[in-house]
Amino acid sequence: MATIKDVAKLAEVSVATVSRVINKSPKASQAAITAVTQAMQALGYRPNANARALVSQSTNTIGVLVGDVSDPFFGAMIKSIDNIARQHNKHLLIGNGYHNADSERNVIELLINSRCDTLIIHSKSLSNDELIAYTQEVPGMVLINRLIPEIADRCIALDNHRGSYLATELLIKHGHQHIGYICSNHDIEDTEQRKQGYLDALQAYQLTAPQSYIEYGTPDEDGGEIAMTNLLAKNQPITAIAAYNDYMAAGCLSVLEGNGLTVPNQMSLIGFDDGLIAKYLHPKLTTVRYPIQIMAEQATQLAFQLATAAKQSTPNTTKSDSSITHMFVPTLVKRLSVMSPQ
Amino acid sequence: MATIKDVAKLAEVSVATVSRVINKSPKASQAAITAVTQAMQALGYRPNANARALVSQSTNTIGVLVGDVSDPFFGAMIKSIDNIARQHNKHLLIGNGYHNADSERNVIELLINSRCDTLIIHSKSLSNDELIAYTQEVPGMVLINRLIPEIADRCIALDNHRGSYLATELLIKHGHQHIGYICSNHDIEDTEQRKQGYLDALQAYQLTAPQSYIEYGTPDEDGGEIAMTNLLAKNQPITAIAAYNDYMAAGCLSVLEGNGLTVPNQMSLIGFDDGLIAKYLHPKLTTVRYPIQIMAEQATQLAFQLATAAKQSTPNTTKSDSSITHMFVPTLVKRLSVMSPQ
Repeated sequence: MATIKDVAKLAEVSVATVSRVINKSPKASQAAITAVTQAMQALGYRPNANARALVSQSTNTIGVLVGDVSDPFFGAMIKSIDNIARQHNKHLLIGNGYHNADSERNVIELLINSRCDTLIIHSKSLSNDELIAYTQEVPGMVLINRLIPEIADRCIALDNHRGSYLATELLIKHGHQHIGYICSNHDIEDTEQRKQGYLDALQAYQLTAPQSYIEYGTPDEDGGEIAMTNLLAKNQPITAIAAYNDYMAAGCLSVLEGNGLTVPNQMSLIGFDDGLIAKYLHPKLTTVRYPIQIMAEQATQLAFQLATAAKQSTPNTTKSDSSITHMFVPTLVKRLSVMSPQ
Repeated sequence: MATIKDVAKLAEVSVATVSRVINKSPKASQAAITAVTQAMQALGYRPNANARALVSQSTNTIGVLVGDVSDPFFGAMIKSIDNIARQHNKHLLIGNGYHNADSERNVIELLINSRCDTLIIHSKSLSNDELIAYTQEVPGMVLINRLIPEIADRCIALDNHRGSYLATELLIKHGHQHIGYICSNHDIEDTEQRKQGYLDALQAYQLTAPQSYIEYGTPDEDGGEIAMTNLLAKNQPITAIAAYNDYMAAGCLSVLEGNGLTVPNQMSLIGFDDGLIAKYLHPKLTTVRYPIQIMAEQATQLAFQLATAAKQSTPNTTKSDSSITHMFVPTLVKRLSVMSPQ
C-alpha cells in the first residue's frame, strides 16, 4: 500500500505539503496541489484519516466508554449518541470498560491517543480524582451516569436514590409493610444509592426492614435468582420486593413462579431501568424508568459544546448553559406486577 | 494542546524524526531520542495514535460495521469480536449501517480511511460487486451474515433457508397443516431465504400455502403486530405460525393474547434468532438459534489471519484454513410455544 511518503517522493514535495493538500489547507500552492494529486492518483494512494488528523489535531470520531456494549442499556445509550453524532458528521469509537478500573483507563487512554476531542464516558471504577484529571486534559469530555461535585457541569447523572425511593414508596402506598430488597453486589455507587433510597422510603413511612430483608447477587438474572432463593429460604413475612434492576427482577420472577408464588397476587415486584425486557416479562414488570436515551443525547450535545468552545477559547460561555439538565429524575412505569397484599 | 510540530520545533528536529522516536524506530538516533523526549515533556505532548499510525500504516483498531448497535443481536456480535480483539490488544471502531447502502458505504470508507487493517462487515445493502472490490482493497476484511460465492472464503454466513425449513418442519411434525408465515418487509436476502425455507418445507410435506397465509411487516414487534392482525382478519384455518424473527413473534403473541387466542393451545408459534427476548416471552418462545457469538468469533479470527498473512505476503496459506466454518447451520430451541393442534 502506498504511503504518504511515497506520494511526497513522487510529487517531489515534503510530507507536510502532501498533508496540506489532503487537508485542503489554504497554504498549499496550486503547483503543489497538482503535483500531489497526480502522485496520489498514480500510486492509488487513499487520503488518510490519520494524516488529516495530524494536521487538524482532531478526528471526526467521538470516543465512547461503556460498561458492556452487549447490554441493551448501553446499546440504547450508544444509539442516542450516534444519532447526534451523525448530525455532526462524526463517527463513534467505542470501548468496553466492564466496570473494571484497568479496562476503563485503557479505553480512555486509547480514545485520547486516537485524538477524539469529544468523549462520552460511562466510568464506574475510576476514582473521582483520575476522572477530574482527564476532564482537565480533554475539554470535550463529559461523564454520564456519574456525578462528581467538583465537575458537576461536566456530568449528566441520574438520581438513583430518588428512583429507588419512588419504587419502594409505590409498594408502601399499595399497603405493603414487609418489603424485601434484591440488591446488586457490584461495588459501584449506583448500588449504594439505590439501596439507600429503599431504606429511606421505609423510614419515611415508619417501617422497619431487618438486614435479613435484603439479599445480594450479581446484577443480572442469575444473581436475581440466587438472591430471591435466599430471601425465600428465610421464611419471612415479605409481601413485596424491590429489585436493583429489571434483570434481577426477572430472576426473582422465575424463582417465585418455580415456587408456586404468583406475581402480583402473592408477591408484588418492582424493577429498575425499564430496559428492553421489562415489558416482555409475565406479568409485565412495573419498574422505574431510567431515561438513558435523553441523558445520552444531552451528554453528547454538552460534549460538542465544550469541545467547540475549547477550540474557540471561550470555555466559560457554555458552562452555564441552562438548557442542559445535569441531574435527571427517574419516573414510575406502572404495569402489572404490583398490587395490594391479599 | 501541543502538536507534533511544536515538539519538532523545540527539539530542533523534523516531524518525521519525532514520529520515529514516538514509534521507537531503530532509525532514531540516541541524540534525537533525548531531544524529542525532553521536548515532549516540556510541552506536555501526548504520543499520538495518529502519528504512530502514519508510520506503521495500520492502527490497533478493528473496524466493525453493524446494522444497529442498539439491537441486542448486534450487541452480542460486537461483544464476541471485542473478546477476540482484546486478546490481540486491539480496540473497536464501530459504525451503524442501518441496512442502508449510503450509510454502509460511508462507514466502510471511514473505517478504511482510519487505517483499520481488520474489518468485520455486516452489510445487507451494498452490492456483491462493491463488497468484492472492498475485500480486494483490504486483505483483512471479512463479511459476516452474507455469502458472496466469488469470495466465499471471506464470508461467515448462516443458512437462513435451513433455519426456516427446520422451524416449519417442526410445526408440520406436530401435525399442523395450515401454517401461516409472518414475513419481514425489509428487502434483504435474509427475508427471501427465510420465506423460501418455509415454502420449501411445506412443499416437501405436500402441504400448500396460499399467498394469503403470508403477511408482511417491519422486522420488529410493531411489524409483527400489524402482520398478525392482518392474518387474523382474513379468518383462515391457520393453527400455527412461523415468524421471521423473535421480535415479530413477540408482536404476534400480544395480538393473539389481545384476541383471546392462547399460545400454544389455540395457536402454535415459532420464532427465529433465539435473541435476548425469546426466553422472557410468555410462553417461552420455541425458536431457531442464530449462533451469532461463535460466528463473530470465527469471523474475527479469520480477519486476523488474513490481515497477518497479507503483511507477510503469504495470503494463500490461510485461504484454505479448514478450521474455519464458513456456513453455519441453525438449530431448533424447543421451549413452550409449540404443541399439536387441539
